[in-house]
Amino acid sequence: MIAGSAGSFVLRATDGAARRGTLSLAHGEVETPAFMPVGTAATVKGLTPDDLRAFDTRIILANTYHLWMRPGRETIEALGGLHAFMSWDRNILTDSGGFQVFSLESRRELSENGVRFRSHLDGSQHEFTPENVVAFQEALGVDVAMALDVCVKLPAAQAELDEAVRLTSGWAARCAAARTRPQTQLFGIVQGGLDERARERSARDLVALDLPGYAIGGLSVGESREELARMSRFSAALLPPGKPRYLMGVGTLPDLFNAIDGGVDLFDCVYPTRCGRNGRALTRAGDLNLDNAQFVRDARPLDETCGCAVCANYTRAYLSHLFRAREMLGPRLLSYHNLAFLAQAMAEARAAISEGRWSGFRDRTEGFASTGGPEPAG
Amino acid sequence: MIAGSAGSFVLRATDGAARRGTLSLAHGEVETPAFMPVGTAATVKGLTPDDLRAFDTRIILANTYHLWMRPGRETIEALGGLHAFMSWDRNILTDSGGFQVFSLESRRELSENGVRFRSHLDGSQHEFTPENVVAFQEALGVDVAMALDVCVKLPAAQAELDEAVRLTSGWAARCAAARTRPQTQLFGIVQGGLDERARERSARDLVALDLPGYAIGGLSVGESREELARMSRFSAALLPPGKPRYLMGVGTLPDLFNAIDGGVDLFDCVYPTRCGRNGRALTRAGDLNLDNAQFVRDARPLDETCGCAVCANYTRAYLSHLFRAREMLGPRLLSYHNLAFLAQAMAEARAAISEGRWSGFRDRTEGFASTGGPEPAG
Repeated sequence: MIAGSAGSFVLRATDGAARRGTLSLAHGEVETPAFMPVGTAATVKGLTPDDLRAFDTRIILANTYHLWMRPGRETIEALGGLHAFMSWDRNILTDSGGFQVFSLESRRELSENGVRFRSHLDGSQHEFTPENVVAFQEALGVDVAMALDVCVKLPAAQAELDEAVRLTSGWAARCAAARTRPQTQLFGIVQGGLDERARERSARDLVALDLPGYAIGGLSVGESREELARMSRFSAALLPPGKPRYLMGVGTLPDLFNAIDGGVDLFDCVYPTRCGRNGRALTRAGDLNLDNAQFVRDARPLDETCGCAVCANYTRAYLSHLFRAREMLGPRLLSYHNLAFLAQAMAEARAAISEGRWSGFRDRTEGFASTGGPEPAG
Repeated sequence: MIAGSAGSFVLRATDGAARRGTLSLAHGEVETPAFMPVGTAATVKGLTPDDLRAFDTRIILANTYHLWMRPGRETIEALGGLHAFMSWDRNILTDSGGFQVFSLESRRELSENGVRFRSHLDGSQHEFTPENVVAFQEALGVDVAMALDVCVKLPAAQAELDEAVRLTSGWAARCAAARTRPQTQLFGIVQGGLDERARERSARDLVALDLPGYAIGGLSVGESREELARMSRFSAALLPPGKPRYLMGVGTLPDLFNAIDGGVDLFDCVYPTRCGRNGRALTRAGDLNLDNAQFVRDARPLDETCGCAVCANYTRAYLSHLFRAREMLGPRLLSYHNLAFLAQAMAEARAAISEGRWSGFRDRTEGFASTGGPEPAG
């Protein structure tokens, strides 16, 4: 076991529970609060690293489960690690694969040692253990690795929640003991569903491991917006102020602002890119569905206040044409805009916290707060 | 009727029948020989105008039939014309829609006046006439408009070829008479299949109209590579040296080089972008199929000699991963490379002609000549 050492988190300002920080990782600094674009299969769908840098993305997320299956550890190692493989020179966080494996339901078998499952691609059998998911993420050379956790679908019986917390705590300790690479920071994941006692127990167990960062998992899995806000705030308050806090799988602007208000620093979600592929544009005036006939001759940009390259160059009319004609430039441009738009919202939130005007900013952004309807499929 | 006047073509050098020219159009100069990327529905599939400018694209092609159907003339006019609609500030050539309509076969009805057909989108009835396709293209504000022609599927009966030439000549004269916009250059289209007498008659009729440019149509529709080369050379020689010559629907590097050798200046084809969407990379060593297992850990760029941004940043291994994972970044990056690669080949051809070493260049490019297998579907 080695101490996690390449990273540090500096809290620059607080405003209520909201925090403005800087997370230093092996591939540069991440200003928080920050939204991490999701690049499941070693690509943020439709976008290049240049695109991501254009709106100052400092860290993206990739997926242990998917990369384990395809192209596999040996291939990524042979190509020089995940950064070189995908030509991305900034930070990468990989989730542990736990969430994906527990989504497989009937295909998986849980034990004290780990979780056995069958690949969704070819049915082949695999096992994730705390040790092998850390080894995998270290082999990829990522900047932040997530501990293996047990993610429970809500609503869940008390016994199931308690068992998930017990296993997650034990696995986190084994993950911590398995570390060999100082440049890869290990984050633990707080579980416990909507049960405060279980959340407290989970956080206490993980904090005792003195990890360099903590995630809040097991949320954004079907509970209400209010339950999500309440439980992320409750969980954040259980974590040490000097470590970064990452709410997994969030998301929409109102959920992001609620969680920032509760003291969360980092986020990831497929929402902006999935919406981008499905013709849904994030704007200050709420989400726009480009399939709607009202946009056919609308010469305005998606959002008049947005500074992104898509809003500088294209009209709603043209973008809606691309979706009607099923042209792949549509998903590409809309994914870019949605991520750039969220990046700008995060930059504005950081400025508001730094300048002690967070609560005013949060309350004024009613346009922001009207976004985030039900997520489109696909 | 007005004289076509905004364009001029200057022949800078010849080497054998091969020509090096500059075509001046309303949105800038086009150095020839040039390949025009195809943007059927007001988008070169997957790419932005910035992408196209990165490899110095001076002119793209769009499609009258598709834009007529969707989004339609009124929408494009309301958005300020096709250039503004798609945010492209360089030249656009639109084909007349004849080729698409004649591909509809059972859905179309030919008359002296024009061609009636049903939309592939909703079955609605439309008619293209020489006058209304010119009016449509002028309304779009394009730089080059194509005359309405009758494109015959090969092999064809002599009577059918002769009738197609007769109608095409009459329609070209009506197109010329219908012109109202000096910034839009009208090109006529030589038809006649593989019949030299019909080609001669077609070229003579069109040349008599003194149009600013001429296309060679009705080829690349199933004939052999040798027949294509022979007939494009034969047709080019029938056209006035001081006007640009455009071979429609070509294509692969060997076909491009053969046609340049026969005196052709301009080309368009979906081949590079369709290949790009299907995992086929154009390289100096021939086409690569990225589905092939040999590329899984291949750390080389697609083409070691290619100066494009994709070859500078990504390996064959990563690109083949993107196609295996069905990630849309794959089609985007490969379409970019394929078009950039063709643009470089055209720039090299121009330099070779200018410097009087065309025949040596043509004969040395055996790597180039090995490309261009059967076109992938889709």
